[in-house]
Amino acid sequence: MYRIDLNCDLGESFGAYKMGRDEDILRFVTSANIACGFHAGDPSVMRQTVRLALEKGVKIGAHPGLPDLIGFGRRNISISPQEAYDMVTYQIGALNGFIQAEGAAMQHVKPHGALYNMAAKSSELSEAIAEAVYKVNPELILFGLAGSELVRAGEKIGLQTAHEVFSDRTYQADGSLTPRSQPDALIHNDQQAVSQVVRMVKEGKVFSQQGTDVSVKAHTVCIHGDGSEALTFARHIRQTLQASDISVKAISE
Amino acid sequence: MYRIDLNCDLGESFGAYKMGRDEDILRFVTSANIACGFHAGDPSVMRQTVRLALEKGVKIGAHPGLPDLIGFGRRNISISPQEAYDMVTYQIGALNGFIQAEGAAMQHVKPHGALYNMAAKSSELSEAIAEAVYKVNPELILFGLAGSELVRAGEKIGLQTAHEVFSDRTYQADGSLTPRSQPDALIHNDQQAVSQVVRMVKEGKVFSQQGTDVSVKAHTVCIHGDGSEALTFARHIRQTLQASDISVKAISE
Amino acid sequence: MYRIDLNCDLGESFGAYKMGRDEDILRFVTSANIACGFHAGDPSVMRQTVRLALEKGVKIGAHPGLPDLIGFGRRNISISPQEAYDMVTYQIGALNGFIQAEGAAMQHVKPHGALYNMAAKSSELSEAIAEAVYKVNPELILFGLAGSELVRAGEKIGLQTAHEVFSDRTYQADGSLTPRSQPDALIHNDQQAVSQVVRMVKEGKVFSQQGTDVSVKAHTVCIHGDGSEALTFARHIRQTLQASDISVKAISE
Amino acid sequence: MYRIDLNCDLGESFGAYKMGRDEDILRFVTSANIACGFHAGDPSVMRQTVRLALEKGVKIGAHPGLPDLIGFGRRNISISPQEAYDMVTYQIGALNGFIQAEGAAMQHVKPHGALYNMAAKSSELSEAIAEAVYKVNPELILFGLAGSELVRAGEKIGLQTAHEVFSDRTYQADGSLTPRSQPDALIHNDQQAVSQVVRMVKEGKVFSQQGTDVSVKAHTVCIHGDGSEALTFARHIRQTLQASDISVKAISE
Repeated sequence: MYRIDLNCDLGESFGAYKMGRDEDILRFVTSANIACGFHAGDPSVMRQTVRLALEKGVKIGAHPGLPDLIGFGRRNISISPQEAYDMVTYQIGALNGFIQAEGAAMQHVKPHGALYNMAAKSSELSEAIAEAVYKVNPELILFGLAGSELVRAGEKIGLQTAHEVFSDRTYQADGSLTPRSQPDALIHNDQQAVSQVVRMVKEGKVFSQQGTDVSVKAHTVCIHGDGSEALTFARHIRQTLQASDISVKAISE
Repeated sequence: MYRIDLNCDLGESFGAYKMGRDEDILRFVTSANIACGFHAGDPSVMRQTVRLALEKGVKIGAHPGLPDLIGFGRRNISISPQEAYDMVTYQIGALNGFIQAEGAAMQHVKPHGALYNMAAKSSELSEAIAEAVYKVNPELILFGLAGSELVRAGEKIGLQTAHEVFSDRTYQADGSLTPRSQPDALIHNDQQAVSQVVRMVKEGKVFSQQGTDVSVKAHTVCIHGDGSEALTFARHIRQTLQASDISVKAISE
Repeated sequence: MYRIDLNCDLGESFGAYKMGRDEDILRFVTSANIACGFHAGDPSVMRQTVRLALEKGVKIGAHPGLPDLIGFGRRNISISPQEAYDMVTYQIGALNGFIQAEGAAMQHVKPHGALYNMAAKSSELSEAIAEAVYKVNPELILFGLAGSELVRAGEKIGLQTAHEVFSDRTYQADGSLTPRSQPDALIHNDQQAVSQVVRMVKEGKVFSQQGTDVSVKAHTVCIHGDGSEALTFARHIRQTLQASDISVKAISE
Repeated sequence: MYRIDLNCDLGESFGAYKMGRDEDILRFVTSANIACGFHAGDPSVMRQTVRLALEKGVKIGAHPGLPDLIGFGRRNISISPQEAYDMVTYQIGALNGFIQAEGAAMQHVKPHGALYNMAAKSSELSEAIAEAVYKVNPELILFGLAGSELVRAGEKIGLQTAHEVFSDRTYQADGSLTPRSQPDALIHNDQQAVSQVVRMVKEGKVFSQQGTDVSVKAHTVCIHGDGSEALTFARHIRQTLQASDISVKAISE
């Protein structure tokens, strides 16, 4: 039986600023990546989002980011591996406070934005992040770009990892995502987006922009949570996956 | 056998800014209150301070403060009880990340500065803080001003509490500290400061500025960690307490 | 000829977070209070908002707030007068950078939220704020709650001031606003709201919740900028004021 | 007659955190680069430092940095040219608030740390920074690494620029500084450090690590302000320069 996890970034509101339709998107996803206050989120938003995810039966993960609220954690910062270790440890711990307070347990850790992208290519940053996750709790599952340095570092230290794929992004012949700066980076057709995921799950392959098939592991798919189109797409991909005999469930289930 | 805990605020450096003589003061205290990044401290400082305290065999507590780095957490902010709950949960969790990563356990929680002082007088804030501590981990010990609303709230919810006394502050007839705005707020004579603590521990009493004796519980004494005078005093109070048949050990031992 | 200024808080977005319908509301107001990065706003938002206001011919003022992004500057912080002076000077200067870069000039300064409310009652804070405004540029106009300590301090130091009134708030017999904590604090009826303003402008009086008439100066009215109802109301009050022979123009015109 | 300006970074304290011996170093330098709150400094420190520099007759410049207090502005952040423009405009303006409040005028702008280094190599970032400086006030002097993209951009837009050289850093054959990662990056011998500056001023040349002479313009020298050694060196370089018939005065004099 094929299976896949659907994950989404949540808890990105901050103070008086609202972002995302968390309550709606939680109906469709199986794993929630909750912002930890560095690139988005604040303590009150974190508490609310943890409770909301638990109410909906969605598994919770920490979504640590770079300390850059203005840039939403999307700008590279030249941090050292030690700084990466420290900021990931801090953020996992902070979210864990709210999860423990509810008597629940954290499932996974998925770095956010620039931290995710920098780690994908840097074994040093990835090893520091994987070490932070492992040392806080070796039962945590590390989410990273499929085939990236991050999942490699997680496997090396002994963590369970989840290879993450994207429905709305095209792939290169080397298995990397087509950079957003290129015109063909995004898949705008929903049907095509879902088909790409179905094939990745069932055949372990994705058709690259160079016309070749690339092997890819697909344990979890990233779904967007903002805007009404995101909700429509989330419903659509979940239904299509299930109709394709792919069980949609959390990575830890 | 009489006993007392000596606690000190630590880990107050931030980025390139150094504060406190943490390594030195750890030789004399039994409990370390480590800043959690809101009023002082940063993730790297927290990791270093946790490791240092563990090396020295000093028990670790979270020292959550108001989100006010410029004001060092010393300016009152009109937060709601819910906000107090959230910021305390976040900060305990964040420090706990580093403690778990070292395979150790947190002993206590002591709010910092304005949060400590506001809680001392507000049962609502205190109950929110006590609830945060209790829900994250009911084994944690809550430190608060002796006889204050904070220890009362901790006891009410079922936490072990530590009544904190001060060696260098004078007391009022109602058991409160003489406000710093008054000229007689501080005790400058070291001998007198230590004698006040010895009497609080052995007799449960302190002589007030109004000339009356006041009952006070003394479980832990706050020691300063900055400057060479602080180190001299720390050594002095520790030696005098021990010479007075008072065992100096961590609250949880 | 009667006259009134309509002012609105603008530039409250922050990074990826959007707030307010700045472009729309600028069609109806004559003075824009632009957030300066402490309680809301960031450098990019400030540049964009300054340019937008200039395009629409709306006068620009600095809207300095307390350093509390999570609390949107609405939580009291126990700052000293010196700190108030410093943070207001900093924020006026920062916004002025963008205004000078466009070859334009700042018209006014209106403190935000908790800083506005604390200043209204504290002559010490108000004098510090008025001094900051005056020393940066004595031609600036200081906006404050009508009859408050803030306008009093402005007048005392020699600044032109603008007494601000509210259309949707009820008044007490002493001329203060009914606190939001009371059920009768808000006026929900648009017609009644506008009538209150017309009377304040033409007769210099407002009917208090205690049934008495209170004298009030009305130089500028605060209009909200968020939500479609705010836009409808802004259009309505502007039209009604003009139809009542009240000229709607910026305070400096 | 030869001449040189001596500049130093000042106002780097933050809240309760003290850094630098500003009062002492001001006796030796002619231009002060004052931190603006992004990488160091806060509004109160800025006011104090502006007043101190004015008292000592030292010219004042803005020292804008990246928004990274934890990293002290030394970590590269992948900002866009537009973001560089905005953050420089903001910080110049903010410091200018304090300078205007004292009835004085700003002399120059010198970007800090990673912003300085990134600009040195990027014409796009440099042009954005130069545009910000020019648009706020075309009379400001832009400080940048001698021969870098930053001074080039300044000259291109029509600003007066100051080529900055370093006494304690070695140079490469292409005129760039030897990266700090290399063992021969620093000059530890004070005599050699001063001699290098004297030659740069008088002959317009520096001896590179590759054994060749490189042409370099030397308008201002960067002096460190922290530690007693820095003070000793500052006194030494000032005296030696003057004894070598080089007039030490501010760039604008």
